[in-house]
Amino acid sequence: MDPYPKPLRDLINQLKRLPGIGEKTATRLALFILADRQNLPDELAATLKTVREQIRLCPVCFNLTDRQKCSICLNPSRDPTQICVVEEPSDVLALESANTYKGLYHVLHGLMSPMSGIGPEDIKLSELLERLKHSLVSEVIVATNPSVEGEGTFHYINKIIHDAGLSVTVSRIATGVPMGGELKYMDQVTLASALRYRRNIKDF
Amino acid sequence: MDPYPKPLRDLINQLKRLPGIGEKTATRLALFILADRQNLPDELAATLKTVREQIRLCPVCFNLTDRQKCSICLNPSRDPTQICVVEEPSDVLALESANTYKGLYHVLHGLMSPMSGIGPEDIKLSELLERLKHSLVSEVIVATNPSVEGEGTFHYINKIIHDAGLSVTVSRIATGVPMGGELKYMDQVTLASALRYRRNIKDF
Repeated sequence: MDPYPKPLRDLINQLKRLPGIGEKTATRLALFILADRQNLPDELAATLKTVREQIRLCPVCFNLTDRQKCSICLNPSRDPTQICVVEEPSDVLALESANTYKGLYHVLHGLMSPMSGIGPEDIKLSELLERLKHSLVSEVIVATNPSVEGEGTFHYINKIIHDAGLSVTVSRIATGVPMGGELKYMDQVTLASALRYRRNIKDF
Repeated sequence: MDPYPKPLRDLINQLKRLPGIGEKTATRLALFILADRQNLPDELAATLKTVREQIRLCPVCFNLTDRQKCSICLNPSRDPTQICVVEEPSDVLALESANTYKGLYHVLHGLMSPMSGIGPEDIKLSELLERLKHSLVSEVIVATNPSVEGEGTFHYINKIIHDAGLSVTVSRIATGVPMGGELKYMDQVTLASALRYRRNIKDF
């Protein structure tokens, strides 16, 4: 017999749907939420509702926003000649935290993956091409993850921009050994890439 | 500048209040909740509301329930002569999962802790005494954690039951090396306790 009352069991099951949350953590979280005297359940429920209602996709770059356009597209100090193409909104947040890129973004909301049946029409690729046709963009930086799907999507983007006859430079983020990484723990493909794309000391 | 829209930042901040959830995990969970197409935000919000409204404390044993009394108190096959005293509802769930105890419970909702200013009146001790006076209970098994507060609460329970002149046996869960544990990793107090409370082979 399940020792949990049904509403509590429901909450545990909902929390278990979240990534990295198993039975034990879900139970701990549910009991914590229940025991909280600062109205966490009510506030969390209200915030979830607000998020669901107010967060939408920016019609220009498809990043998350609660306004007509996202804060990056609305920022006049961002460089409109560069577009960085990423897979997901969380990639925008990661790149923004590096605090070095000052251009605009384009979020694909997925990567092309023939194995999973995800084709070019399932991600925001036609929107990217349409955007490039009516903009000042001179460089598209493809910052998809260095995976099979990420590389495939990069090459496809390069192809469609070339086929459309746009005078836009397409570039790819660097691959190599991450800062603080150790060579002995790196896989062969990363090491091969790091050697192949070595930089001349004059470039530093 | 915060790259997150405000409702998303609110959700991340709410999730960060949960135990063991930091900035990175909260962000990952919030983005997952947002990206979910199976209505996780709505369902989670609804479940939180239900939990808040329907879960209450059993008036007999103070375990969590969504009915008048908890399922253990209502179960006629449980032994009414034994009460197991625990700190929190999660301890009931842990003991129930061991599937060996068939008596009733009493949840204290805390332990006496003079250092934190928690006295006997702050936990469900008078309720326990009142319950013992009007019941068939012959044994109280104190299953608080083997900590300073747990031991202190155990001795206090023993004292008040004795002072009230009740003919109730008070016992304490066994301390020792856990099953599968290794002696070399055990602390001195556990080892001292395991030696002191060694069992004669005849008792097996």
